[in-house]
Amino acid sequence: MNKEITSVQNTYIKTLVQLKEKSRDRKKSGLFLIEGAREISLALKGNYHIDTVLYVPELFSEAQLDGLSVPSNSIIEISKEVYQKLAHRDTTEGIIAVAKIKSHDLENITFKSKQPLILVAEAPEKPGNIGAILRTADAANVDAVIIANPKTDLYNPNIIRSSVGCVFTNQIATGSTEEIISFLKEQQIAIYCAALQASEVYTSQDFKTATAIVMGTEATGLSDAWLQNSTQNIIIPMQGEIDSMNVSVAAGILIFEAKRQRNFK
Amino acid sequence: MNKEITSVQNTYIKTLVQLKEKSRDRKKSGLFLIEGAREISLALKGNYHIDTVLYVPELFSEAQLDGLSVPSNSIIEISKEVYQKLAHRDTTEGIIAVAKIKSHDLENITFKSKQPLILVAEAPEKPGNIGAILRTADAANVDAVIIANPKTDLYNPNIIRSSVGCVFTNQIATGSTEEIISFLKEQQIAIYCAALQASEVYTSQDFKTATAIVMGTEATGLSDAWLQNSTQNIIIPMQGEIDSMNVSVAAGILIFEAKRQRNFK
Repeated sequence: MNKEITSVQNTYIKTLVQLKEKSRDRKKSGLFLIEGAREISLALKGNYHIDTVLYVPELFSEAQLDGLSVPSNSIIEISKEVYQKLAHRDTTEGIIAVAKIKSHDLENITFKSKQPLILVAEAPEKPGNIGAILRTADAANVDAVIIANPKTDLYNPNIIRSSVGCVFTNQIATGSTEEIISFLKEQQIAIYCAALQASEVYTSQDFKTATAIVMGTEATGLSDAWLQNSTQNIIIPMQGEIDSMNVSVAAGILIFEAKRQRNFK
Repeated sequence: MNKEITSVQNTYIKTLVQLKEKSRDRKKSGLFLIEGAREISLALKGNYHIDTVLYVPELFSEAQLDGLSVPSNSIIEISKEVYQKLAHRDTTEGIIAVAKIKSHDLENITFKSKQPLILVAEAPEKPGNIGAILRTADAANVDAVIIANPKTDLYNPNIIRSSVGCVFTNQIATGSTEEIISFLKEQQIAIYCAALQASEVYTSQDFKTATAIVMGTEATGLSDAWLQNSTQNIIIPMQGEIDSMNVSVAAGILIFEAKRQRNFK
């Protein structure tokens, strides 16, 4: 017999609402919420530890639950009312998991290939852009995504949603710009900074060897530390009225130029 | 002496609020709102007719106003309170224009180049994606952006904002899928549909001659009419856990592959 919670006043539910809403509470507890069966199964595939699963029997069947293969000792039935309190989206899929945050230390990165391709983003802010970047990184099967001086925690519900679960499928590390530069240099990975100054057209560079493509913010670009340690600055030639591209689109163009050069291998 | 409006109850102001909020009212009146000096000057550059300019003297100086060179007989001073009623963004730039909607008929398209490069998007929905696509189109200086079976009107404040004014710098046409296919065929423009079925890797195709790159929605892809009239379906090879890319990122990758082949000319 599963545990059951029907009151939105329940203390545990209140704790979970905090996890949804507050980055600080996620950090403190080391837990976060995952909404939706697809996202939960991607998290399981990505070796995330699922602490608890909460589901609405009227919305999500036991058969569906079995399909997810989550540990049965941690399943709680909830009412629709409780679900609405916990859910971030408008959809009513009826399933939410509480999962453990992973470590995103640079030292944990393992490269899939001998000539790794890495996407670095410094201080990205908009969850929508971070999500789109993670989708591109998944599609390109990059070795790792590294976020320098993160402004938003990865388990923000808007990032999970806009990444359509790619936050779980990518190998993601975070660190300070200085730590990441040291790491890339130690690993002898060339640093290609997307920048306006002293830059070469991106298609003129050889991205077939170990490559990190480094993106700054739309507002202020990359910090000086990156520019000082750049192997080569690269630029996407622009010929419009406004020299402005969405950062996730620019990242996609650069990463897929590297993929083209590597024959999509 | 400029006209002055300080009451949010003013009938004209109420009409403008409707223009901001309702697509139907924009269509009916043929007018829409443009917020911000940069956007207004891009609209002027794009030959939009400015009907009226409303500004808050405490926020936007007369010198700034002169810099914009809008016709002086259509300037109204407004209070901060009225401005807040009209403004869509959180910023307090203090200037808003009422402008005339342009015709976006296919017949009005004039090509900048002999071998035009055109971006077609069928039924795009999210203003953020449409804005990002328009930014890419501006940067790539494509000949035209064509929106098939539009779901959102172009003068939606979220599109203007997310395009950072590129809605004014691009040549944009709209029409039904059938009209656009006929138009492209008449003009002997090759139709490359981004699609999973019967597709070739995008980098294997020659985009140097007259080319239309056609994007469907993330949810349902392109309609059958496009696929039946496709010169060649193209695909971006994906190697991740989830075969899913943001539509504006995918459009950017395809358009800039065409630009690469054309030596960015």
